Amino acid sequence: MIAFDPTPEQDALRARIETFVMDKIAPYEKDPRNTAHGPTEELRIELNGLARDAGLFTPHVPERWGGMGLDHVSMAIAFEACGLSPLGPIAMHCAAPDEGNMNLLDKVATEAQKERWLKPFAAGDFRSCFSMTEPWGAGADPSAMKTKARYDGDDFVVNGIKWLITGAKGAGFTIIFCDVEADGDKPGGPTMLISDMDAPGIELSRELDTLDSSFTNGHWEVTFNDLRIPAQNVLGEVGEGFRYVQVRLAPARLTHCMRWLGGTVRAQRIALDYARKREAFGKPIGRHGEIGAMLAENEMELQQCRLMVWWACALLDKGEHGRHESSMVKTSVSEALFRVADRCVQVLGGMGVTGDTVVEQIFRETRAFRIYDGPSEVHKWAISRRIMKNG
Amino acid sequence: MIAFDPTPEQDALRARIETFVMDKIAPYEKDPRNTAHGPTEELRIELNGLARDAGLFTPHVPERWGGMGLDHVSMAIAFEACGLSPLGPIAMHCAAPDEGNMNLLDKVATEAQKERWLKPFAAGDFRSCFSMTEPWGAGADPSAMKTKARYDGDDFVVNGIKWLITGAKGAGFTIIFCDVEADGDKPGGPTMLISDMDAPGIELSRELDTLDSSFTNGHWEVTFNDLRIPAQNVLGEVGEGFRYVQVRLAPARLTHCMRWLGGTVRAQRIALDYARKREAFGKPIGRHGEIGAMLAENEMELQQCRLMVWWACALLDKGEHGRHESSMVKTSVSEALFRVADRCVQVLGGMGVTGDTVVEQIFRETRAFRIYDGPSEVHKWAISRRIMKNG
Amino acid sequence: MIAFDPTPEQDALRARIETFVMDKIAPYEKDPRNTAHGPTEELRIELNGLARDAGLFTPHVPERWGGMGLDHVSMAIAFEACGLSPLGPIAMHCAAPDEGNMNLLDKVATEAQKERWLKPFAAGDFRSCFSMTEPWGAGADPSAMKTKARYDGDDFVVNGIKWLITGAKGAGFTIIFCDVEADGDKPGGPTMLISDMDAPGIELSRELDTLDSSFTNGHWEVTFNDLRIPAQNVLGEVGEGFRYVQVRLAPARLTHCMRWLGGTVRAQRIALDYARKREAFGKPIGRHGEIGAMLAENEMELQQCRLMVWWACALLDKGEHGRHESSMVKTSVSEALFRVADRCVQVLGGMGVTGDTVVEQIFRETRAFRIYDGPSEVHKWAISRRIMKNG
Amino acid sequence: MIAFDPTPEQDALRARIETFVMDKIAPYEKDPRNTAHGPTEELRIELNGLARDAGLFTPHVPERWGGMGLDHVSMAIAFEACGLSPLGPIAMHCAAPDEGNMNLLDKVATEAQKERWLKPFAAGDFRSCFSMTEPWGAGADPSAMKTKARYDGDDFVVNGIKWLITGAKGAGFTIIFCDVEADGDKPGGPTMLISDMDAPGIELSRELDTLDSSFTNGHWEVTFNDLRIPAQNVLGEVGEGFRYVQVRLAPARLTHCMRWLGGTVRAQRIALDYARKREAFGKPIGRHGEIGAMLAENEMELQQCRLMVWWACALLDKGEHGRHESSMVKTSVSEALFRVADRCVQVLGGMGVTGDTVVEQIFRETRAFRIYDGPSEVHKWAISRRIMKNG
Repeated sequence: MIAFDPTPEQDALRARIETFVMDKIAPYEKDPRNTAHGPTEELRIELNGLARDAGLFTPHVPERWGGMGLDHVSMAIAFEACGLSPLGPIAMHCAAPDEGNMNLLDKVATEAQKERWLKPFAAGDFRSCFSMTEPWGAGADPSAMKTKARYDGDDFVVNGIKWLITGAKGAGFTIIFCDVEADGDKPGGPTMLISDMDAPGIELSRELDTLDSSFTNGHWEVTFNDLRIPAQNVLGEVGEGFRYVQVRLAPARLTHCMRWLGGTVRAQRIALDYARKREAFGKPIGRHGEIGAMLAENEMELQQCRLMVWWACALLDKGEHGRHESSMVKTSVSEALFRVADRCVQVLGGMGVTGDTVVEQIFRETRAFRIYDGPSEVHKWAISRRIMKNG
Repeated sequence: MIAFDPTPEQDALRARIETFVMDKIAPYEKDPRNTAHGPTEELRIELNGLARDAGLFTPHVPERWGGMGLDHVSMAIAFEACGLSPLGPIAMHCAAPDEGNMNLLDKVATEAQKERWLKPFAAGDFRSCFSMTEPWGAGADPSAMKTKARYDGDDFVVNGIKWLITGAKGAGFTIIFCDVEADGDKPGGPTMLISDMDAPGIELSRELDTLDSSFTNGHWEVTFNDLRIPAQNVLGEVGEGFRYVQVRLAPARLTHCMRWLGGTVRAQRIALDYARKREAFGKPIGRHGEIGAMLAENEMELQQCRLMVWWACALLDKGEHGRHESSMVKTSVSEALFRVADRCVQVLGGMGVTGDTVVEQIFRETRAFRIYDGPSEVHKWAISRRIMKNG
Repeated sequence: MIAFDPTPEQDALRARIETFVMDKIAPYEKDPRNTAHGPTEELRIELNGLARDAGLFTPHVPERWGGMGLDHVSMAIAFEACGLSPLGPIAMHCAAPDEGNMNLLDKVATEAQKERWLKPFAAGDFRSCFSMTEPWGAGADPSAMKTKARYDGDDFVVNGIKWLITGAKGAGFTIIFCDVEADGDKPGGPTMLISDMDAPGIELSRELDTLDSSFTNGHWEVTFNDLRIPAQNVLGEVGEGFRYVQVRLAPARLTHCMRWLGGTVRAQRIALDYARKREAFGKPIGRHGEIGAMLAENEMELQQCRLMVWWACALLDKGEHGRHESSMVKTSVSEALFRVADRCVQVLGGMGVTGDTVVEQIFRETRAFRIYDGPSEVHKWAISRRIMKNG
Repeated sequence: MIAFDPTPEQDALRARIETFVMDKIAPYEKDPRNTAHGPTEELRIELNGLARDAGLFTPHVPERWGGMGLDHVSMAIAFEACGLSPLGPIAMHCAAPDEGNMNLLDKVATEAQKERWLKPFAAGDFRSCFSMTEPWGAGADPSAMKTKARYDGDDFVVNGIKWLITGAKGAGFTIIFCDVEADGDKPGGPTMLISDMDAPGIELSRELDTLDSSFTNGHWEVTFNDLRIPAQNVLGEVGEGFRYVQVRLAPARLTHCMRWLGGTVRAQRIALDYARKREAFGKPIGRHGEIGAMLAENEMELQQCRLMVWWACALLDKGEHGRHESSMVKTSVSEALFRVADRCVQVLGGMGVTGDTVVEQIFRETRAFRIYDGPSEVHKWAISRRIMKNG
């Protein structure tokens, strides 16, 4: 069956979240603790409290861990509303990289690991980070990974440099993607390891300045110097790291799309409002043809993005891995949302390049989004390889 | 509920139509009777016979008139498959303007009118045309209409010039959009009248050369010189013409999208096939990055178009008029399909600008589609006016 | 010195040509001998006569052969005016492929060859064709060339198939790009040979239907079956074919740009004229914002194209080969002119997709131009390779 | 004559500036005094010293005031080199708004005013600001201006709010664009007044956060509360303000283009360098087709921009006002440079969104440039009005 009507439950949740985000959270956008390196830890904790009070904390998480156990389509509806403010996902504890890490732990971790990390993490006791990208580009091409782990007794010892590690400062733990060196009959290969962030051997070697500013405590270069990780902290199995990357990736791409769809919907609302009220040459600027055309193009592209996200979510809800489809969606949605945000800036004119509205931030965030989780060019290359094969 | 799975019936119908169109109809694309002014009447009749034999004639029409009575979503699935060849809709008698005229007669005509015109028309005894556009642009701005009808006894007498009238030559009847002059207490205003095409006073004053070539007998300028039409041939009521335009328009825009989506899917298949087989500089051209990127962009845009069409169809199936949404869909889909077709031409290189594949035709058709049923600029202007109001 | 003022001589020539083309030649655009496969030979000869009478025949040719011996910048100015009608270059005998062939013969041929072919050719006694492209793509990637010539006594014997050979039918001679097989100490390699077109062994094996229609007698597939060519017909030296391709190519790319710049300037004039006169919703359509914006974008892009062409011409006039620059110019100009032509179609609405104005043709021609002389993707790939090296 | 060769003097100047900017100034880009609100006053003064030492201070200024008296074409060459670093124009004291203000004073001010303001200003003793834009949009539509001046004895008394006033903090004086209220036979109308910035009645009411960060001390909201300005500080004549806006505007638009052309050339150099060195999937990323294509598109667009700037400069050097042409150039160049900068970000991938290279800043600056000095939409509207008239 082909249908486009959210259920009453989905509609109600959307409405609740929208009211919460616009009324309670959006006013914090001008809070001085919402900095060029993202919200501070203090602000994050304060916002978490508001979401808990509203019963809207971690809606994506299984009920066992305190969430609503939403399916992907419901998540699409909820997260779009949540994303109306860049601070919405921070408040509701469903921002990247935490939301993807919760999902990964839930799917792959042992019970002991879940009790140790997922439970307090989902409760908001601490945040996390995901240590994958390296300065030499292990993001787009994971085969270039240089971070190595060697066996040492019952432990692994990890050395390497990770880069663009979102929220590293202040995180409670990190999942590290590294290359384990085989040792005798002990297996090797790409592997995920969990480490507390206060472990000796983890250095926050550099804070990065970035175009975007929505992630708590921004992005970091993290250096591992003989970081010791006990064997029980292997996530899943040694050598299976790439498989878990995929487990994490397809949904994480989509939740990015959902949140920034919401942000861009907000930008369009602001642009429309401005286009109605601001007059130039004797009429509202939105009645000037080219401005009107830009607003109409935005309306069309936002709806396209929403449908694409829903479509891939429905696939995931059926149990498909959706690797190809989520790649198509991430690419087309990130490019489209950026165009929409760019037009909103232009509609606002001088106002659009100032921080007086959140449009300026959404422009910066959607720009970065075209690169995060794989630049569009890498995705297009992968998409083309797959469709070239299916002949 | 949000869902994207065609029903088994829809899937089966799609498969039947695709097989029929690709196996039986597509080979006629090179038939000399498929001319620069579209298929000839003779070819149309031959193809109709094949569709009847396959049980695939007029699938969109209510069962009463010999069709399958498909809802809009089912039509979207059926027509996409049908459109894989530009001759598919000709064969299955669901091309423009006939398909839209059948819909309009079914919704607005009297029983007597249906017996007189719809029944043999749906049976394929003749085609029809829709006389609306005028050389001075009554297409985009209907208020500019100059074709007038005056009362004369029990008849109307019509004078005026219509332009870009698709399939006028050889049509059995036409629906004429004109301005009735009020006369005493007889009402006036924009009105639809039905006339046999062999009525005295209808002159096919000029055949137009056009970029597109998919419509039977092409496009014409038609002149009405004291064309006499009996009062019983009023379609609906005098003065309600604009309302019927809307009745016809929203679904007709969408069926255009469906058919050309199919055509462009075909173009992409041809381009992909070529990109796999043709080598340059030592590898298949589809493995060259920019060509691969173009194919990937096509894949994403085709899926976006499909989802947009389905979305608006689902609205219509719920009984909404879908004026705003069908306008958004027509605009975004026509622009996107043209980009896709343009990339397919480019992938094919020199081959792409020759008639050796149907891609060249689909490029021309999708170009015209950006203008037919309202240029994108007019739609965007209308969309922006509506969203400017909803503040 | 940096300067943008045509000399008085250039200005006067431009004005003379523009008046000639618009007054004498443009009216022939609707002549039935101006067919979907280009102007007929008869029409070509009639138009040549008009250009001779006006003293505007072959302005690009050295004075020795009856021309004006224009430098490249002067040619840019003259050809833009000439290109205002697609028939202008036909009339003035400076269309492709003749214009490029005259240039190549003048630069590379022996005196005897010039007397034999260039003299009557430049006089307009016959046309020529250039047999380079092959169905498997020797256009973009010449290493794929399959047409072979073997030594046989004092002759070469040529076998192969050429494709998209413009104006083959009715041409007096052809320059054939083929691969000579070395034989003992007789050298081999890519070579240009001249052959009369009525030689036994040349078969016009197929007429191609193409999107464009401006070249006399259209495009052909040409088959060489044991075509015998005497050794004295080698153009330049055996094995030097690629070098002569380059000699021909850089200027030929630019003259294409010049002519289609003229054609697109004409399209913009027609669109502007229409936008001033045609009213919709109460004012000239050009006063509607988005249409106005499209016209403004056209104005900017046309000027950019003109400057790019002049820039590369000035390089050639200084004696540089301009391979890189002419590739940049061809790519950016063909893409921009197509965008301009596309917008002109859109401004004209329904009229734009009909043959009622020449805009429809210019749209088709500029589409093909993005592929002829190397698709944009191939040029961009070559440009990127060169700039990647210059580090 | 049409020519594209800088004179030896221009070439030598370009080389000197490029060496100076890259060797001496670019290293300061990472200086902590180069803040999100632009360079600090202290940094500006330090960089000014370096430029003075290099003999490259205020090259655009007439020799009388210590400059080189460059014509516009020479300025284009010099400023492109200067713009290679966003700090280049700060160092050489030819950044906006100072450079435009020097030009305006030189053309319109009285001798006394020049001695009082231009002389020390050109010497670098202080900076200036230009108080024109208002929060309600007097930028794009000057008729909306609300800042008023009334006569009061020999003085004017000014009240109003200006917005996006670049470099207001720390400026030595400002030129205020306001509406003088006629009083008896004292004339009124749009007028430019000069005021010292430390005059009572000038309040820096708010510092704006903006996307760009290249202007000393950023952008401000400035409030005039009964600001008293003596009559001798009228710049030119009362009521002639719009004329002086035009005097200032055409060249100022072009110098913006020149400087940001330089900045974007720098971004392309960085992207190229990265594309050569960074490997992915077994080869330098610039050898991957789509990345290569992006670099090639950049190369073409940068050259187009350069030629457009030179073209308009040559017109100004002939004494034309160049209003139409400079508007075309500003619009096309700002849009193109943004596309180029956007591609450079994308080529750099994750690195591109960090402050690790200056590309991230140039992306932000060129984004703002599409709005500063008139959003592209306003320019296109004005361009279309002019070409609609010339029929």
